[in-house]
Amino acid sequence: MHVQAVKSRHLQGQPQREATTTLSRFEGIWAALLTPFAEDGEVQLQMVGSLVAATRAQGLAGVYVGGTTGEGVHLSEAERMGLLEAVMAAAKDTKVMVHVGAANPLESRRLAQHAEKVGARAIASIVPFVGGYTEGEVTAYYEGLAGATALPLFVYYMPRVTGSAGWSRQFLERLLRIPQVKGIKYTHADLHVLRELVCEGHVVMYGQDEMLCAGLLMGACGAIGSTYQLLGREAIALYQACRAGNMAEMLRQQDRINDFLRVALEMPYLQALKYVLSLKGLAMGTCRFPRQTLSAAQQERLREVSTRLGLV
Amino acid sequence: MHVQAVKSRHLQGQPQREATTTLSRFEGIWAALLTPFAEDGEVQLQMVGSLVAATRAQGLAGVYVGGTTGEGVHLSEAERMGLLEAVMAAAKDTKVMVHVGAANPLESRRLAQHAEKVGARAIASIVPFVGGYTEGEVTAYYEGLAGATALPLFVYYMPRVTGSAGWSRQFLERLLRIPQVKGIKYTHADLHVLRELVCEGHVVMYGQDEMLCAGLLMGACGAIGSTYQLLGREAIALYQACRAGNMAEMLRQQDRINDFLRVALEMPYLQALKYVLSLKGLAMGTCRFPRQTLSAAQQERLREVSTRLGLV
Amino acid sequence: MHVQAVKSRHLQGQPQREATTTLSRFEGIWAALLTPFAEDGEVQLQMVGSLVAATRAQGLAGVYVGGTTGEGVHLSEAERMGLLEAVMAAAKDTKVMVHVGAANPLESRRLAQHAEKVGARAIASIVPFVGGYTEGEVTAYYEGLAGATALPLFVYYMPRVTGSAGWSRQFLERLLRIPQVKGIKYTHADLHVLRELVCEGHVVMYGQDEMLCAGLLMGACGAIGSTYQLLGREAIALYQACRAGNMAEMLRQQDRINDFLRVALEMPYLQALKYVLSLKGLAMGTCRFPRQTLSAAQQERLREVSTRLGLV
Amino acid sequence: MHVQAVKSRHLQGQPQREATTTLSRFEGIWAALLTPFAEDGEVQLQMVGSLVAATRAQGLAGVYVGGTTGEGVHLSEAERMGLLEAVMAAAKDTKVMVHVGAANPLESRRLAQHAEKVGARAIASIVPFVGGYTEGEVTAYYEGLAGATALPLFVYYMPRVTGSAGWSRQFLERLLRIPQVKGIKYTHADLHVLRELVCEGHVVMYGQDEMLCAGLLMGACGAIGSTYQLLGREAIALYQACRAGNMAEMLRQQDRINDFLRVALEMPYLQALKYVLSLKGLAMGTCRFPRQTLSAAQQERLREVSTRLGLV
Repeated sequence: MHVQAVKSRHLQGQPQREATTTLSRFEGIWAALLTPFAEDGEVQLQMVGSLVAATRAQGLAGVYVGGTTGEGVHLSEAERMGLLEAVMAAAKDTKVMVHVGAANPLESRRLAQHAEKVGARAIASIVPFVGGYTEGEVTAYYEGLAGATALPLFVYYMPRVTGSAGWSRQFLERLLRIPQVKGIKYTHADLHVLRELVCEGHVVMYGQDEMLCAGLLMGACGAIGSTYQLLGREAIALYQACRAGNMAEMLRQQDRINDFLRVALEMPYLQALKYVLSLKGLAMGTCRFPRQTLSAAQQERLREVSTRLGLV
Repeated sequence: MHVQAVKSRHLQGQPQREATTTLSRFEGIWAALLTPFAEDGEVQLQMVGSLVAATRAQGLAGVYVGGTTGEGVHLSEAERMGLLEAVMAAAKDTKVMVHVGAANPLESRRLAQHAEKVGARAIASIVPFVGGYTEGEVTAYYEGLAGATALPLFVYYMPRVTGSAGWSRQFLERLLRIPQVKGIKYTHADLHVLRELVCEGHVVMYGQDEMLCAGLLMGACGAIGSTYQLLGREAIALYQACRAGNMAEMLRQQDRINDFLRVALEMPYLQALKYVLSLKGLAMGTCRFPRQTLSAAQQERLREVSTRLGLV
Repeated sequence: MHVQAVKSRHLQGQPQREATTTLSRFEGIWAALLTPFAEDGEVQLQMVGSLVAATRAQGLAGVYVGGTTGEGVHLSEAERMGLLEAVMAAAKDTKVMVHVGAANPLESRRLAQHAEKVGARAIASIVPFVGGYTEGEVTAYYEGLAGATALPLFVYYMPRVTGSAGWSRQFLERLLRIPQVKGIKYTHADLHVLRELVCEGHVVMYGQDEMLCAGLLMGACGAIGSTYQLLGREAIALYQACRAGNMAEMLRQQDRINDFLRVALEMPYLQALKYVLSLKGLAMGTCRFPRQTLSAAQQERLREVSTRLGLV
Repeated sequence: MHVQAVKSRHLQGQPQREATTTLSRFEGIWAALLTPFAEDGEVQLQMVGSLVAATRAQGLAGVYVGGTTGEGVHLSEAERMGLLEAVMAAAKDTKVMVHVGAANPLESRRLAQHAEKVGARAIASIVPFVGGYTEGEVTAYYEGLAGATALPLFVYYMPRVTGSAGWSRQFLERLLRIPQVKGIKYTHADLHVLRELVCEGHVVMYGQDEMLCAGLLMGACGAIGSTYQLLGREAIALYQACRAGNMAEMLRQQDRINDFLRVALEMPYLQALKYVLSLKGLAMGTCRFPRQTLSAAQQERLREVSTRLGLV
């Protein structure tokens, strides 16, 4: 039934009025939130409110806190909790999913429990990204994390960062069958596996911003990406064009997003996003040590493309 | 102008009546042709005519001879020439592109000259796939091959087979700027790079059958794949649905193709395709030594899915 | 003496009379220390003294705390500090090097400062193992860490864990030229690069226990490895045989070590080491969640090989 | 018995007078022979005699024809046969092992049969290096090749070229248990697996010239490498020092070899070897298209190091 619902929605290319709570919560365009830092390298909590407000102003459906974009794994446990609390204070009706993956699996559990306490809608976790865990251990990890709270849990699948060649479809499905695992944040170019997961009825949020339209075509319910903090309007238009079955419009919006990424991906990426936000008046600082800063030439190129695209 | 033509076609999601000779020749759905073998392991040339006829009967635009699917690099130079001649004898108005890549770059040149002599429309080549060539050497290779005939040359990009992590977009563009290089057979999941090439005005034939609809959405002119030998009708319907801007139909056809691949990719793939063709009365034999044969259970699963999908 | 000979020959082709304190301190066989856990998953600090004493009883030159073997990156900052303090309390004249690498680079700095405060001899760090840092950022990381204390700093090079294909010799030398970087813990099979580093005068502690004799032959000053906690006597005999130029004895000891590893590497490795220590009366518990436990059959095989080799 | 013989030789670090035919044939230092080319890109057969004579003059035990160094897979079947015949005509008592691996497995069989006909001592083959063969297919390949002649067959293991991450020890042992497979040319840095194979009684010829002394220490019977064509004297001295248990001399010779490699590995390597041979009066030409030539600066650096080391 659930599978049918998902499949039919995509096969027919039109919105449905499903009662599925899960789907109604995890769809649309979410921003993977950057984390602002002060000059001294500490998290700048007082900037978080403006950042969340700017996200909401673009009409995004939710925010993803403390992921790769948010430098979550490079923060201390206390910093991560403080960051989430600052986000919650500003979130209002913006949905909040928080990434709790950490090198220390017990820290992940504590972060999950904290997320539940402060009212986040969902948690997500990459597998502990160092240690060479076996598939059995990875499964045990997600089972343990799922049992730690009543929150929906998303598997955060990003083989480029976790350094593996990628898990098999079969293994991903095994993880997605853990009762409290409600979906997957899928950041990978292999859309065949994505489609297979969708056809099995799983909720997939897509994570490759530069291929967003292809991910949505193949059945992702929505997307979570860093780029949408800046190009939220384009991503939302793309998402709506997909719902409306308008491929030409999807591509037109994708090309706008990629016009920006063509410049930003040639340089340190998170720093590039932060710089453009600072041009919009949101002082994001740099990134956590030892991340390096942009050159003047890189800043100039970002100013040029952002102006051309009307981002600032 | 050229760039505009390509981009606009995709941006507007509708067919155009371009005068571009290149585009008019390399688009639509092409079959990557299997090579039939006799019991003794020799190429079975007398089967080639029926195979090409069956391809034409499905309405496919062209055939790709001696690629990965056709076990081209595992054949001798004489076998490759004999195979191409048998295809040409049966091809009529079906377009023929022949893969000439070989471990010996001089063999590639000779195969290219033979292709021109017997009237093929185009040649393609993977880079010599063993030897650890530098980017400068790869460039010299394609320049040399381009200069050996007057035929259009396609770069055959398939990092999974050539064992590299993939070339950069910049390097692919450098190859595509060689005057006689007219396009790329792009067999890779990274649709961002594909889109960048399309936006630069390059002709891209897509090669990941299981993601065909996403490749076409992102701007590929057409596709070359082994699966289309069996599911040509589905692929053509998908291609036409893309031209017509009908995403739901695209996905419906993709899901039919993937229903087959879900079974076939779990076993030795080329042998699976050959087995299904043999069920249709086209005795393809097995594959070249030391490829192994299918088990009875695998054959049974193929019979079941092929019957269910109406392929046999 | 041996070390002296190697360095001087390469640096100037003639003997030198250095009183290099560094060399006198970082040589010989060191144990990469396991971390004991209690049933509830917490670090069992009261076991640490016995473990260090057992190490000292074998005659090992030093201990390496909180590395891969010690599950350091899976512990909290407070646990890592507590662990080091427990080691220091038991260490007496055993030298102590502590691994301070962490996903959060600021945690690494604090751990380094703590190490200095409690009297460790040296610190080591893998590069922050998640985040895709550039070479410039990795360099900045080690420079920053080197500046945080007056302790000698070792680069911990273990490409298998950090997921990279390995850094170039040139980059490793760049890191080793940072003034306070006094050596490298080299855990990699490529002994050509190791030899090049030795020929440049760098202090190399080898980390592939199963190839120890080859690493020492190629010029490593010593070795740091998990296996030596159990087979310290063999490793010391191997080291002394190298000093004495006795290759047959080196191999004989290596083969004893590998007789053990042939069994232990077929199963979860850290759990295997802990199990054998428990057979010797050192109750080490299991590993941090979600590491899995050994089967009865695996335990039986470990009992058999340990008895045969006289380890228990 | 056989195992004992091998093990004891290494454990005792001294030569033995074994009757083992296999060992008496496949040991010592062999040169992986370069292939000379004329200006027009064709194989220069008339140079082969001088090249083999120069090899013999250095006292090398054998030559390895048509491997990676000899650009074997880039030659046509006829060229490979012609090359071998030219080598045989000049070989006298120099042992000849010929590499028969090819993209076309039937070509490998024919090359094997030709090798037997013209009197080579042994054949070797990498697995067909393109095609993604399964372990079962690789096994079938070696079984088929072993059955094609009565010659001893060596597995040529070089994961860097075949693009795999390496086969397991268990799989290599399975191949080495095929009756006619008499040994392995092991070109890989992992000396643990090498040692395991030696301990099982297998004949291992080592292929990483820059780590030769470590490979011999760990039990390789001998070595096959391109470098030894130029630095045969050093390699033989190293080999004899290993037999005599003289580690300091082993390292001294290794360092001489590596002094050369430090320069040669920074540039196109085969071209560098050919250039130095040409300085010695052996006009080797360049490499097969599309290999590129050396710059004047690279040639100058080679002249300098070759003069300094007394090679020319």
